[in-house]
Amino acid sequence: MPKRLSVAQYEQGVRKGDRSVLARAITLVESRKKSDQILAQALLNQILPHTGKAIRIGISGLPGVGKSTLLDLLGMKLIEQGMSVAVLAIDPSSTLRGGSILGDKTRMQNLSLHPNAFIRPTASDTTLGGVARKTREALFLCEAAGFDVVIVETVGVGQSEITVSHMVDCFVALMLPGGGDELQGIKKGVLEVADIIAINKADAERIPLARATLREHRAALRYLRPKNNHWKPQAIAISAITGSGVDDLWALICEHRNVLEESHHLSLLRQTQRKRWMWDLIRESLLEKFQQHPDVKTSLETTEESVAHGLQTATTAAQTLLDLFAKK
Amino acid sequence: MPKRLSVAQYEQGVRKGDRSVLARAITLVESRKKSDQILAQALLNQILPHTGKAIRIGISGLPGVGKSTLLDLLGMKLIEQGMSVAVLAIDPSSTLRGGSILGDKTRMQNLSLHPNAFIRPTASDTTLGGVARKTREALFLCEAAGFDVVIVETVGVGQSEITVSHMVDCFVALMLPGGGDELQGIKKGVLEVADIIAINKADAERIPLARATLREHRAALRYLRPKNNHWKPQAIAISAITGSGVDDLWALICEHRNVLEESHHLSLLRQTQRKRWMWDLIRESLLEKFQQHPDVKTSLETTEESVAHGLQTATTAAQTLLDLFAKK
Repeated sequence: MPKRLSVAQYEQGVRKGDRSVLARAITLVESRKKSDQILAQALLNQILPHTGKAIRIGISGLPGVGKSTLLDLLGMKLIEQGMSVAVLAIDPSSTLRGGSILGDKTRMQNLSLHPNAFIRPTASDTTLGGVARKTREALFLCEAAGFDVVIVETVGVGQSEITVSHMVDCFVALMLPGGGDELQGIKKGVLEVADIIAINKADAERIPLARATLREHRAALRYLRPKNNHWKPQAIAISAITGSGVDDLWALICEHRNVLEESHHLSLLRQTQRKRWMWDLIRESLLEKFQQHPDVKTSLETTEESVAHGLQTATTAAQTLLDLFAKK
Repeated sequence: MPKRLSVAQYEQGVRKGDRSVLARAITLVESRKKSDQILAQALLNQILPHTGKAIRIGISGLPGVGKSTLLDLLGMKLIEQGMSVAVLAIDPSSTLRGGSILGDKTRMQNLSLHPNAFIRPTASDTTLGGVARKTREALFLCEAAGFDVVIVETVGVGQSEITVSHMVDCFVALMLPGGGDELQGIKKGVLEVADIIAINKADAERIPLARATLREHRAALRYLRPKNNHWKPQAIAISAITGSGVDDLWALICEHRNVLEESHHLSLLRQTQRKRWMWDLIRESLLEKFQQHPDVKTSLETTEESVAHGLQTATTAAQTLLDLFAKK
């Protein structure tokens, strides 16, 4: 097989559900080479009419919360029901690409071997914004390849949850029983974007603690404004090891989807996501061009410091930098 | 008096605490005329060394929550203690400038007549971003005029609370007893930025309801990550009518300030605020320039719609628009 396919070859391979072409198409999308990017955009625009049919699920959680065990179990359950499942993993904390792929094969033992599953970690050697863009485009490719369910998995730190929530229909936040400071720290962001909160490891001696955590989360959810008028975020206790509650979690995801579809909110949600995506890209690119401008770059640090220490107003400083930028 | 003063005249008048010059300086800052803006920036850079000494407080709440009654009472209490108080009001929902000023005079009856107070609504005929910029600069002018306390008041809707929280040291969210859907709706944003939550109208037959609301808010605050490591947001019940709890509210504001000062977090907070301010202005201006570019303007609507309906990828659309923008 040639190193590089034509757009038509990529398109045909992806649409046939050819796993090796799909994998290569995602690599193309991830490439930073200008010529690859042009090819990738041509491919994406070709396959766009064939996207949008999958159930898009986001799953986040700190390392150790049991994401892989849950995805392995949930994924196999869906496959047994006749569905095909793609898992795209974003891990901003991982550093080795090869290691990460190996890791995914090991950590989802059943799913990674099944022909109706496709597991792909996102290259982690780029910024989060870049990773997110590529993951979104990989999601489109998986949809065009005919996957019924696409799961975007992310480590629940910082901005990544919000980014993922903007590309999926349903966002599941996976939590541990108990609430140490570390867990408390991530809750605020999670509560804002989660459609479903699943307290994992509700098994054996952890059941009472899991129940208490569930009550706490339900209480917290009561105080907060729901993301939309059609769905109030739900909390549930599960165990990915015993399998307890995993069917209920899937039922909840389906209920969420039905509500979105019946209220016509799903197509509205996706339209909003696409527009936001375009504006995010524009804002990101404008700011990057600004920061990369040689004259701006030269005086940025001193200007920022002088503003921080109150030596000039932010307005004057911003204007000075913007004037430098305007003189291309 | 001439219609327009020189920078030196403005500076001298403001620094002497001359109310009429201060009012005119704020009008200058609010002006959209290019020549006024240049003069305003010159003035602001002149007075900058004389700013930063006031206690900066933000107060938000929905219409009817009792902001004016509280500010009238609290302001007079501070004046009795020998302090001078400036109140800057941002009301994105008001439409008539003259009416708004008249309204403020009527609604803070005692404070508006006292020589040690200064009340100023922000021109409401601009975007929120513009209003906020001008309010921040008006705050600097009030500080240079020697006010001990500057209160920025805003109606608690949408983005305005977050904007105000970025220009003050201490943010107080005023709430009503009870928790209808409307109140629930604003809580999420409030809980994120509030240092102090004050449940107002805790008087007569509303005392039990106010106590229940207080408990609810304290519970909600427990679940959320504090804004910084030095201060956990506090909730308190007050009555601006009977005066009950208003001294405690002031004591809490002072405690918050002491904590910030002792932990050296106050100067850090203000440095961060100034830098964020500069970047907000830069981002805003870049996006505005982009949106105002004639070629971008022409194709923006159709491009956005085609992205929304999945006819082209956000990446392609963003690139097309950015290319149009680059061809100046």
